[in-house]
Amino acid sequence: MTLAEEVLQGNRLALARVLTQVENETERGHQALNELFRRTGGAHLIGVTGPPGTGKSSLVNQLAYYYRNKLVGKPKRVGIVAVDPSSPFTGGAILGDRVRMRDLAGDNGVFIRSMASRGSLGGLAVATSGVVQVMDAAGFEIIFIETVGAGQAEVEIAHLAHTTLVVEAPGMGDDIQAIKAGILEIADILVVNKADRPGVETTARALRNMLQLAHPVPHVFSGIDSPGYSHHMVELSDHDEPVSTSGPTGEAPTIWIPPIQRTIATKGTGVVDLIEEIERHYKYLKETSELGQREQARLKSELDILLRERLVKRWRERVTETRYGQAVEKLLRREISPWQAVDYLID
Amino acid sequence: MTLAEEVLQGNRLALARVLTQVENETERGHQALNELFRRTGGAHLIGVTGPPGTGKSSLVNQLAYYYRNKLVGKPKRVGIVAVDPSSPFTGGAILGDRVRMRDLAGDNGVFIRSMASRGSLGGLAVATSGVVQVMDAAGFEIIFIETVGAGQAEVEIAHLAHTTLVVEAPGMGDDIQAIKAGILEIADILVVNKADRPGVETTARALRNMLQLAHPVPHVFSGIDSPGYSHHMVELSDHDEPVSTSGPTGEAPTIWIPPIQRTIATKGTGVVDLIEEIERHYKYLKETSELGQREQARLKSELDILLRERLVKRWRERVTETRYGQAVEKLLRREISPWQAVDYLID
Repeated sequence: MTLAEEVLQGNRLALARVLTQVENETERGHQALNELFRRTGGAHLIGVTGPPGTGKSSLVNQLAYYYRNKLVGKPKRVGIVAVDPSSPFTGGAILGDRVRMRDLAGDNGVFIRSMASRGSLGGLAVATSGVVQVMDAAGFEIIFIETVGAGQAEVEIAHLAHTTLVVEAPGMGDDIQAIKAGILEIADILVVNKADRPGVETTARALRNMLQLAHPVPHVFSGIDSPGYSHHMVELSDHDEPVSTSGPTGEAPTIWIPPIQRTIATKGTGVVDLIEEIERHYKYLKETSELGQREQARLKSELDILLRERLVKRWRERVTETRYGQAVEKLLRREISPWQAVDYLID
Repeated sequence: MTLAEEVLQGNRLALARVLTQVENETERGHQALNELFRRTGGAHLIGVTGPPGTGKSSLVNQLAYYYRNKLVGKPKRVGIVAVDPSSPFTGGAILGDRVRMRDLAGDNGVFIRSMASRGSLGGLAVATSGVVQVMDAAGFEIIFIETVGAGQAEVEIAHLAHTTLVVEAPGMGDDIQAIKAGILEIADILVVNKADRPGVETTARALRNMLQLAHPVPHVFSGIDSPGYSHHMVELSDHDEPVSTSGPTGEAPTIWIPPIQRTIATKGTGVVDLIEEIERHYKYLKETSELGQREQARLKSELDILLRERLVKRWRERVTETRYGQAVEKLLRREISPWQAVDYLID
């Protein structure tokens, strides 16, 4: 039996081994991914990002705990991938696997993996994508991809997800720069965590205002003629109610405007409501063409990153050390510019 | 006269034009860079990074103003490159050139350029590097490279600088995650801005503690036998004094431990002290082998990014749309994995 087959049979040790192979980009890791890839596509991938200090890890822990223990129906199997792209020097993820396990210890339906930087951003995105694919094939139905921070790296990793949560907290939103337009644009659901702290109103209001700028009230509703759907007016209310248009009997909306959900992760407050929003977004993705489009964009972007890495690797194998060394020497003496050095080395 | 020659003669309009060409990566831009590159190497490149909301822009404005107007000796020519890597969707830099100009308006010795994301991180690093090289060749002696945020993108851009300032502010440092180990490791000077706000002691203490972890007191001093230098004990004091070892008569230190400098940028408080620290660091770089090493690492990393971009461009020209389309189709149907698609397209 191959390692991949053992993963498919639910062997956790085999899973951990494959993940390590995938993270280290070994030949065996690629082989396992080739075998497992056709079994992917079943999981709901949920990205969680936002500035440091907003309590993302606690929130993800709580969400996982509720998916396992507190909801009606069959508990779902939950994977958590915690990525720290801004720690390129330490080489170790800030959030240790053990620390994360406290609430979820001993539950075989949960698998947690922390990942630190792989040197290059492309490398990290590829490794994260591989880890997510293995968990997906292994039958985890909900997979959280949690990133520390809110920069370009986080945006790229958010592209791996179907549903992206952007987490803020009171006291960070006073400054307009703290809530970045770029980050807002990747948000499917906005979460104001630590909602028992002073300043929660200010933060929620700031988010609502920026949301209004990013998603102006549409005047024409797509799908207005399709039977079975009637629409409420899109309204960014003063309460943090879901603001998407939705059918009167709880159908998935035909246009998605990110709702703002308040939570207190440490107490579990708002977590069930948040899960309802997540499920509503997944339903929306499935009932519109969005899910297919996101899958397509996701796989194409992964292919492009892999192509890039392979091209560089192949070129490195062909150019001699001497020739490369000569180019660097001339560059350092400022005899040639970086562009001229590239001409010399490639063309 | 070529555009590059006009830049060397101090023509500001020509400078602005070349920068636009370089930013857009045109053939003319590359040509100008090839001409100008041999004239680079004169500027002191100062990176300024840190979390949003710490007042980096005000601080850079003040530093520029002091370099121009408040210091003893000949005023230095100052370039400012403001980079926003985390705004991939809007396509416009958050900090407009005009807003930045308020304090520095009408001063021909200052040139300010804002840059937004170029789609890829490598592209942004290359474009920023090109812009800095043009300013360097144009005779700007101090060039600030300011980035919004504190993620991997900022770390990569910090690699372009000789001296890197990491800016924090009170009230953001309570959470251990707010001060990232990775960011601390790129800091040559730590700045606690907004030092009139409550919590400044807590922030300074947190930085000092993390600094102590990152730079443990060395037991062996390099260069202890070299004449002309005697060393104080390295001590991370309770005050925010410079903690590097330095000679008794103000020589540059032979080992650099990042000092912590408090500032109130809006009032100009601490700005002269900060400039003294910056100058002390530059002196240190020049008197040790560090400057050469940083230059070498900087140019090599730029060459690698350029090589990468060129390889992808060349491959794109050779692969047919049909073949690429077929691979993507099979990938989307999950008949082949991303790794198998790469094999199909490259090998």
